[in-house]
Amino acid sequence: MKSILIFLIIVSAFEPLLAQSSVIGEKFQLMPIPAVFQLGTGRLLIDPSFSIGISGRADPILLRAAERFLADLRWKTGMLPLDMKMADAGNAVLVVHVDHETNGLLQLGEDESYSLNITMTGAQLSAATTWGAMHGLQTFLQLVTTGPDGFQVPVATIQDSPRFPWRGLMIDAARHFMPIEVLKRNLDGMAAVKMNVFHWHLSDNQGFRVESKKFPKLQELGSDGFFYTQDEVRELVAYARDRGIRVVPEFDMPGHSTAWFVGYPELASGPGPYAIERKWGVFDPAMDPTSGRTYKFLDAFIGEMTKLFPDKFFHIGGDEVNGKQWDANPKIQSFMRTHGLKTDADLQGYFNTRIQKIVAKHGKAMEGWDEILRPDLPKDIVIQSWRGQASLAEAAKQGYRGLLSSGYYLDLGQPASQHYAVDPLGDGAADLSAEQAKQIFGGEACMWSEYVSPENIDSRIWPRTAAIAERFWSPQSTRDVKSMYERLAEVSRDLEGLGLTQNSSYFPMLRRIAGSDDIATLKILADVVEPVKGYARGSISPVEPTNAMPLNRLIDAARPESEVARNFSDLVNSLNAGRATPGDKEEIRSFLMLWRDNDDNLRPLATKSFLLKEVAPVSQALSELAETGLQALDYLDRGELPSDEWRTQQLALVEQDSQAKAQVLIMIAPAVGRLVAAASGEK
Amino acid sequence: MKSILIFLIIVSAFEPLLAQSSVIGEKFQLMPIPAVFQLGTGRLLIDPSFSIGISGRADPILLRAAERFLADLRWKTGMLPLDMKMADAGNAVLVVHVDHETNGLLQLGEDESYSLNITMTGAQLSAATTWGAMHGLQTFLQLVTTGPDGFQVPVATIQDSPRFPWRGLMIDAARHFMPIEVLKRNLDGMAAVKMNVFHWHLSDNQGFRVESKKFPKLQELGSDGFFYTQDEVRELVAYARDRGIRVVPEFDMPGHSTAWFVGYPELASGPGPYAIERKWGVFDPAMDPTSGRTYKFLDAFIGEMTKLFPDKFFHIGGDEVNGKQWDANPKIQSFMRTHGLKTDADLQGYFNTRIQKIVAKHGKAMEGWDEILRPDLPKDIVIQSWRGQASLAEAAKQGYRGLLSSGYYLDLGQPASQHYAVDPLGDGAADLSAEQAKQIFGGEACMWSEYVSPENIDSRIWPRTAAIAERFWSPQSTRDVKSMYERLAEVSRDLEGLGLTQNSSYFPMLRRIAGSDDIATLKILADVVEPVKGYARGSISPVEPTNAMPLNRLIDAARPESEVARNFSDLVNSLNAGRATPGDKEEIRSFLMLWRDNDDNLRPLATKSFLLKEVAPVSQALSELAETGLQALDYLDRGELPSDEWRTQQLALVEQDSQAKAQVLIMIAPAVGRLVAAASGEK
Repeated sequence: MKSILIFLIIVSAFEPLLAQSSVIGEKFQLMPIPAVFQLGTGRLLIDPSFSIGISGRADPILLRAAERFLADLRWKTGMLPLDMKMADAGNAVLVVHVDHETNGLLQLGEDESYSLNITMTGAQLSAATTWGAMHGLQTFLQLVTTGPDGFQVPVATIQDSPRFPWRGLMIDAARHFMPIEVLKRNLDGMAAVKMNVFHWHLSDNQGFRVESKKFPKLQELGSDGFFYTQDEVRELVAYARDRGIRVVPEFDMPGHSTAWFVGYPELASGPGPYAIERKWGVFDPAMDPTSGRTYKFLDAFIGEMTKLFPDKFFHIGGDEVNGKQWDANPKIQSFMRTHGLKTDADLQGYFNTRIQKIVAKHGKAMEGWDEILRPDLPKDIVIQSWRGQASLAEAAKQGYRGLLSSGYYLDLGQPASQHYAVDPLGDGAADLSAEQAKQIFGGEACMWSEYVSPENIDSRIWPRTAAIAERFWSPQSTRDVKSMYERLAEVSRDLEGLGLTQNSSYFPMLRRIAGSDDIATLKILADVVEPVKGYARGSISPVEPTNAMPLNRLIDAARPESEVARNFSDLVNSLNAGRATPGDKEEIRSFLMLWRDNDDNLRPLATKSFLLKEVAPVSQALSELAETGLQALDYLDRGELPSDEWRTQQLALVEQDSQAKAQVLIMIAPAVGRLVAAASGEK
Repeated sequence: MKSILIFLIIVSAFEPLLAQSSVIGEKFQLMPIPAVFQLGTGRLLIDPSFSIGISGRADPILLRAAERFLADLRWKTGMLPLDMKMADAGNAVLVVHVDHETNGLLQLGEDESYSLNITMTGAQLSAATTWGAMHGLQTFLQLVTTGPDGFQVPVATIQDSPRFPWRGLMIDAARHFMPIEVLKRNLDGMAAVKMNVFHWHLSDNQGFRVESKKFPKLQELGSDGFFYTQDEVRELVAYARDRGIRVVPEFDMPGHSTAWFVGYPELASGPGPYAIERKWGVFDPAMDPTSGRTYKFLDAFIGEMTKLFPDKFFHIGGDEVNGKQWDANPKIQSFMRTHGLKTDADLQGYFNTRIQKIVAKHGKAMEGWDEILRPDLPKDIVIQSWRGQASLAEAAKQGYRGLLSSGYYLDLGQPASQHYAVDPLGDGAADLSAEQAKQIFGGEACMWSEYVSPENIDSRIWPRTAAIAERFWSPQSTRDVKSMYERLAEVSRDLEGLGLTQNSSYFPMLRRIAGSDDIATLKILADVVEPVKGYARGSISPVEPTNAMPLNRLIDAARPESEVARNFSDLVNSLNAGRATPGDKEEIRSFLMLWRDNDDNLRPLATKSFLLKEVAPVSQALSELAETGLQALDYLDRGELPSDEWRTQQLALVEQDSQAKAQVLIMIAPAVGRLVAAASGEK
């Protein structure tokens, strides 16, 4: 066994690519898919003499984008900085033309369209704005392949523009702090898939993450020392601006605000003292909406922050206030009676109305989660919905503007296909009039950070977010899941080339768990498990999780979506539908044998590593499931129906092994269940 | 076949680890091996409460080193910034004590020793200097493993000090410019293996790479725009200083200096004009050693640079002057006659004598390559020998000081074992007296950059340089090659954790060549080839190489040392020595079958990618070799002697397939030849 295992290992490419046989050069790995793409005949060769030129006036942002484009193109082709230069538009291979001047900062709703015309001798990229031109450059990069005669792009004509003007990614830097380089590489990823809003969740119960010069105790006492200086904020905003990405800061209030109160307890509705929250959940502390001091503080604070963040929108959070501190505070209760505020929601509405005026005074439009929606707020606010399209549609009908995040929560561990199926104008928003639909700006993928660290956050964001980006950009009719997954795998490689780590971080994490360089057996297991879904990790945890808990277990290394299990499931579906080739069947059997035998190899390792110990039952369950699958396959092969007893036993085992162990799920369990059902003669 | 191939791929770990079964936790992956290492019983657990404290006075460099140590320890254990803190020495788990104050800059010969005492409850690290303490922290990090109850280090006592005080790595940033981040990650790697001199080759015919404020045309006209600003130099010097690494700049003169003359042709011995050199080799242009203007310029230039580089040593190159410009210049010839200088070497000696005085005037000791050694130079100069130990010993006998680089040229593509066998005090220097031997400071690995880019330079430097670092640090008796290779593979993983890319860069390079994500077949081939050795790449190139030539071919992706081929060779040696197990034999056969059949899979891909086209003959040769090996194995199995004709034919084929194709060598060829010989009854 050892020799065959070693034999297998050395054959290894480094990723499971079952049934992944698409060859760059045969297809074009565009993501998001352009609105109009017409393929011509022939190709434009990309050699060291390639050049890019800007016709007409070039703003500095476009010039820097062109330099980055050249650097990315050199990376794709393995060329050197002496190759591929800027040139006069008259001599350049790729000529970029931009119609209108921009003010240097992307505004919501600005024209982001572009057209790209590639012939055998050159290419022309035209756009109304610099932002559109940058999208066109990304499309050009995605078209580059290694061809028979050299690197190439196909002769093609593209007309492209986004379906939605707000295509965002939210990163929660409060619950776990994310260093600036983590954010930068994610901004690079966003630009590559044409996203244009970075929503920066900057304060929560577990941390206040921005330097305030007016109220320095916010970061001094509220951040454990992990915060962004104002210089770093400016640096990140400039980095994003250069990539056509708006930065919307969020300072959550009046709830989710314990970290503020460590330095400024007088803002709170309860007496304090306060400490930075270490656990997850909804907590009681909330700002005192009845105190003039609160508004004075927030006016000065918002004034400071709106100067730091140039975007037109300012996010005040506004979610999940449980009202307990308000209920327990006689002064607040008395205020509510005096002002005719019947419920905590009324009181929060009062707070929001006053905050909105402050935000507006500082020149910004207020944004918040669903809860802020109250008829007394002006129509220029923006609702970010974690509740769903119906909630959003309701707001739109009332004349409010909004964007969808429900369905795009990356921390819930859903497959890309599930996010891909969610449409900001689908379901409860499907019956909106065209006019109302325009009130819905798009959506945002949300990376809440209870269980991510700088090491594994990329693997939670990417590549799934690229599928969401396609939902926001491409025509609504773009819905082929198979095509999406094929392109997603390729785009993921390109994203790694930009510095993202969703694939590369897997291996050191597995080595750490194994306590060994020999991760072959652990990887066989890890490749078919996923972290438990939704909010189960917190609820089934034997000890209450905290923000200091190491994130170094199998659940932290395992991908949110197992490619191997998805492909195995597809094979089983083919088999059950009578579409399987003999090769498919052989593959199913090979996989099952591999999984069945893997536990024998993994068990001895588990005695040596404390991180492998909890994995042992998972490994055993995988082996059991595989044995069941093999038995089912044998029945199918023999054309013999199993006993009812066997069927009942095996389905019970599948059910049992479908339960979380070590907080991970074995993702081949449903397919094994379908094999058992098929063997038992069920359709 | 497809299904079994896919089956193989999904099993993949991501690196060939044939016969690599050592488990961290069973062994300690120390590299370099300490002078004295005594293992005790038990272990010290490393958990989130781990802390480090500094007893006594802590200089800022040590404090920053402790913070870096904690960051590295968190990376090794997957812990978060809230874990593992600095603490008072009284409460810390690891207590560091340093005896003497340093002046903040490592000096040649300073005490770098340390002792580390680890018990089950804590650890004590003591050192004479901050530099020694930093080495001890690296040793501690290497000892951390994943154990049965948690992360751990073993109970142990270590007394350690370096064998040589000068343990260097030279990087040529002139022929191909290396951005500052490439250098930084390599400095991190150096610190991890206790190297202490970064020799920065900053000018050559192909580029002048430092900003001079006094002579700005040096970089403006001599660098293609690729140079280090003075701020970047200061930043890098500070980065190195923080890691206990001296930075020795080299400005090559009077030869290797074409790039200077583009801006300042008046320095040259020929009329000019000059252009940056694009090709490789030794060129005619040389400074005019007879002109007062030259010395005036160099005095001002060296004055400027010695202020920028605080190290005591200043490297003037001095190698490979062909003298042609001197011979052709009547004024220079006349000067030589007037001054009694008979040869070009005499003239260069005259030049060096004058430069040495300038360097000394600016407070530095002059360093140069072998050629500078002339009896008229004072004894404080340092000779860096590319000629070998005999040349070095000769210098030492004359009272000069020196270091060895011959045998450590990383660009020649030698295996780690070959570098490891070279000893600065071996061979021609073995008979030096103890006193003379002290004149030899150690050595430097040299990374000349004709054929490296930022993408693949790490794979040429690492991990082989770690073996060289062990040669410079560990006792002379440390010579077990098997142990070295086992530890080297592990250390290489840790180095990647520091940001080096020697393993990770392989995969995108293969994907680019394949023009596909499906790199399994290409990797099978690439894993057993190596770039041609020595200076063959230039000499056998069909077109003359230049510095703008893309470095994106198989030769650029292939590792200097094939681990798979080395391990296969070991298996064949076992077989031929009668020591092979049935499993070993099965492995040999499995490998040979894999290689034989691989060409069928690779050939269709080669029609789609121009970078694969040149690989096709290599793939075919591998298949032929494997077929030969299988036939030999069959003869051995049957106990039957082949015909002489078969033997002659097969050895001819092995000989033919041992020749370079596409400028790479198939490294299994010698082992296949030995199989043929063994089958033919030869011992």
